[in-house]
Amino acid sequence: MIQPIRLVINGASGRMGRALLALVREDKRFELVNALVSSSSTHNGGPVFADSPASLRYTHEWSAVAANAVIDFSGPDGLAAAIDYCSAHKAALVTGTTGVDAALQARLHEASQHIPVLHAANFSLGVAVLKRLLREAAAALADWDLEIVEAHHSRKEDAPSGTALALGQAAAEARGTSLAKDAVYVREGRPGARRGGSIGFAVVRGGDVVGEHTALLLGQGERVELSHRATDRSIFARGALEAAAWLAGKEPGAYGIDDMLQDRLQEPPHPVVRFRRSL
Amino acid sequence: MIQPIRLVINGASGRMGRALLALVREDKRFELVNALVSSSSTHNGGPVFADSPASLRYTHEWSAVAANAVIDFSGPDGLAAAIDYCSAHKAALVTGTTGVDAALQARLHEASQHIPVLHAANFSLGVAVLKRLLREAAAALADWDLEIVEAHHSRKEDAPSGTALALGQAAAEARGTSLAKDAVYVREGRPGARRGGSIGFAVVRGGDVVGEHTALLLGQGERVELSHRATDRSIFARGALEAAAWLAGKEPGAYGIDDMLQDRLQEPPHPVVRFRRSL
Amino acid sequence: MIQPIRLVINGASGRMGRALLALVREDKRFELVNALVSSSSTHNGGPVFADSPASLRYTHEWSAVAANAVIDFSGPDGLAAAIDYCSAHKAALVTGTTGVDAALQARLHEASQHIPVLHAANFSLGVAVLKRLLREAAAALADWDLEIVEAHHSRKEDAPSGTALALGQAAAEARGTSLAKDAVYVREGRPGARRGGSIGFAVVRGGDVVGEHTALLLGQGERVELSHRATDRSIFARGALEAAAWLAGKEPGAYGIDDMLQDRLQEPPHPVVRFRRSL
Amino acid sequence: MIQPIRLVINGASGRMGRALLALVREDKRFELVNALVSSSSTHNGGPVFADSPASLRYTHEWSAVAANAVIDFSGPDGLAAAIDYCSAHKAALVTGTTGVDAALQARLHEASQHIPVLHAANFSLGVAVLKRLLREAAAALADWDLEIVEAHHSRKEDAPSGTALALGQAAAEARGTSLAKDAVYVREGRPGARRGGSIGFAVVRGGDVVGEHTALLLGQGERVELSHRATDRSIFARGALEAAAWLAGKEPGAYGIDDMLQDRLQEPPHPVVRFRRSL
Repeated sequence: MIQPIRLVINGASGRMGRALLALVREDKRFELVNALVSSSSTHNGGPVFADSPASLRYTHEWSAVAANAVIDFSGPDGLAAAIDYCSAHKAALVTGTTGVDAALQARLHEASQHIPVLHAANFSLGVAVLKRLLREAAAALADWDLEIVEAHHSRKEDAPSGTALALGQAAAEARGTSLAKDAVYVREGRPGARRGGSIGFAVVRGGDVVGEHTALLLGQGERVELSHRATDRSIFARGALEAAAWLAGKEPGAYGIDDMLQDRLQEPPHPVVRFRRSL
Repeated sequence: MIQPIRLVINGASGRMGRALLALVREDKRFELVNALVSSSSTHNGGPVFADSPASLRYTHEWSAVAANAVIDFSGPDGLAAAIDYCSAHKAALVTGTTGVDAALQARLHEASQHIPVLHAANFSLGVAVLKRLLREAAAALADWDLEIVEAHHSRKEDAPSGTALALGQAAAEARGTSLAKDAVYVREGRPGARRGGSIGFAVVRGGDVVGEHTALLLGQGERVELSHRATDRSIFARGALEAAAWLAGKEPGAYGIDDMLQDRLQEPPHPVVRFRRSL
Repeated sequence: MIQPIRLVINGASGRMGRALLALVREDKRFELVNALVSSSSTHNGGPVFADSPASLRYTHEWSAVAANAVIDFSGPDGLAAAIDYCSAHKAALVTGTTGVDAALQARLHEASQHIPVLHAANFSLGVAVLKRLLREAAAALADWDLEIVEAHHSRKEDAPSGTALALGQAAAEARGTSLAKDAVYVREGRPGARRGGSIGFAVVRGGDVVGEHTALLLGQGERVELSHRATDRSIFARGALEAAAWLAGKEPGAYGIDDMLQDRLQEPPHPVVRFRRSL
Repeated sequence: MIQPIRLVINGASGRMGRALLALVREDKRFELVNALVSSSSTHNGGPVFADSPASLRYTHEWSAVAANAVIDFSGPDGLAAAIDYCSAHKAALVTGTTGVDAALQARLHEASQHIPVLHAANFSLGVAVLKRLLREAAAALADWDLEIVEAHHSRKEDAPSGTALALGQAAAEARGTSLAKDAVYVREGRPGARRGGSIGFAVVRGGDVVGEHTALLLGQGERVELSHRATDRSIFARGALEAAAWLAGKEPGAYGIDDMLQDRLQEPPHPVVRFRRSL
């Protein structure tokens, strides 16, 4: 019998944390061993599952007991603590915490010498697939114009989205360039003809759109459009759980969602995708 | 037997002029009586239809003979001459000339007291339908967020397109506001949450896209998307011919494509569209 | 002070019923007075709101007390009882029950002589807007080809969706024809060239798509696309509540969502949408 | 100095033939040496370029002179003759002829032992990219539902399009199955819930749509959409010329557009696309 993965959720009372708790409760691959919140959280000490009062309680203290994996959506301080805990217990660390500065980035990197670490801005498997496909299309159609359109709900404060920028950067790299060199973020008034090789971004905001990204490759007389649409925020929690299940037991190293995707492409029952001579 | 409409094309060697000539040749509703170019045009004096050398020749001189209608895609000077000709001969004037200043606008307006005048920025029937539908949707869903996305070929120099702005202005008016008050043209970096009631524009440039416009009305849990896609520039010439056929014989006045559309909705064989109680 | 609308929900333990209960609890326009389930329901007798045990309990008995409105998503038997109750108490009846046979339809019709009745297959305001716009577009572009594409989740058992058929029928009527005469549901193998005037349907099934409908009007060199996308099932419950708030106090009659939409278009702050001469 | 490729166009008076002639005239990579039509063609003997009467004339006789490549869009008989000519002269053979039976297929196969042969149903580079991306996405997201929607002009007689079927077959193979086993072409009435693993097709017909194909991968809470849109038929002629330029000089063998695409991905200036560990 396979032992379930002993899992800690760090940042358990945030939006992602709660989505993770709801999913992990039904997921036989995991045993939840700790649900961490900040010491000032109103949840601290309360039951994790309201309808099962005898269950686990939220805590701000890391257990002395070893877990196999930590999923962290907390904040820079919480992530720093998670790095320490995982390093001490040889646990896999999956983190989606944002606002990671260079020092913390360096600590993550150092930890990845000893434990498997996966840091991602977007845990959607579909977005990872889109990024991979976009890299190929951007290279294969290197002389077609590339534009990225994204749409999000009206409360989103930054633009373009981090995911749109990550897609653009991946495409730029596949073409041997970078966003710093070739991105165009504003077109208003009389910007003039499109500069060849540029990568344009367009932003839509409104309603409760969870997140949509489209890459357009525009040629002469034809085009290719690659889109991802999210309709439910739970996909990010689901993707983080997939990542934790995949990462637990891996060799130490710094991984991305792409690496998980690559494994999915190579393992049965997916036949090897290779290009043969046709006819 | 119905007499064909005696038609003058002003600006006959430009892109729109040539598209008009190609269509009018096959269109039994019209008799082409003059194809005007500027006096400095290399086409001046040459045959209009290369494979029919005995045919009409390009000229820079307005005929003394009366026409029933003029289609003008020339320039401010050409339009001024067309106003004089149409006023003198009681001919209908269809014009798509851009860059019309206030003085010329005033002359157009004055002419419309005596002859029927139709001035439009976009002669596509589909765009006119889109504008009409968008007015209704913007009013019916007045509390949904409105965004307009447009895409054009890489050589287009202005942004957003004139058509996108016209769509936005129509929607704004249907909500009792204006683009001057509520348009948002740029979102980059950290613009913050979307302001309620604003109308956002997003611009895509690339390839040889003839012209695409989408209005998104974004609500909670649902949205409405209204799009027009042009794949062939000939639609603008075709629309201008439709407009000339419709305008010739109308009462003096200043008309738009909307008025032509309104007539289409009311004439047989289109049944009257009215909203009845259901059940 | 405005009195809240005294509301009964019939079919309260079904998917729509529960969505209605969740919304009505937060909606100051309504006072929930009864939550009806079938006598065999496991919910019968239990508390309506689990975290507020002293609250209303599910019941299978219609109260003797008068309500102002009933929202019914039950079944033919439940609807019959709702008709009796509403007729006796002069309450407005909003129903989305499906599988209504001719006899029940006749009872609904008779009741509408005495009370306001609104029966709809789809309570989304966005779908109602789409239907209205499609009628106009289908008439204005009567010579363009019309196709309707719909997508729903993988568990949906019928095809095309009832909403797709209702959209098609509305468009057909605007063109003076009907689906019975002009619909095309299957294209496989070698169906031959498209018959002019036909209305084609295309069906997509997969994932957890809540519901998407697109009408395409395809001309020469241009097209118009009109879409509705639902991403959250709560829109149907929200629309039913809007309908109840609108219907309560109306004159007796048989109403549809279109009538509610028409009112939205005419009431301030929506300016009257009318088409003026441009220029 | 690079010698131009000596090119024969077989089926030169057909729609593809004429599009090829228009392009090849401006393309310095090629020298047109023969433009073949059937002996009964009205073009036979006439000038290939009307405005340059001294030029090459259409002929129904294969020249005794060797060419480097033949592009064939003729018919089964024409293709048989092209196979003979190419085999005799060691010329590369690019063919898009349809209706190839098993015997002719066998002859093509045998010829590919001695000369390079490329037989394709669709010469659009964008479609080739879409097919490649779809293979990967179908494998990476093997548990998501796959649907293919295609749209073509109203005169198209078969459904789904050959390209839609080819895309579906490619995806099916990437999942270890086949269209014969898993395709669903019709959904009407009450087909019941979607069968897991099936590949659904939906068909749109209307207007003058050149050709659009969308593959939808539909998961829980998210989806990926991959589309190709053609707006100009010249892309197929342009793709056939690209293929001829690429194929001339290759080793004998049976090639597809995929092989050409693979080369584009590997040659500079496209950097190698590889997936590295992130962070």
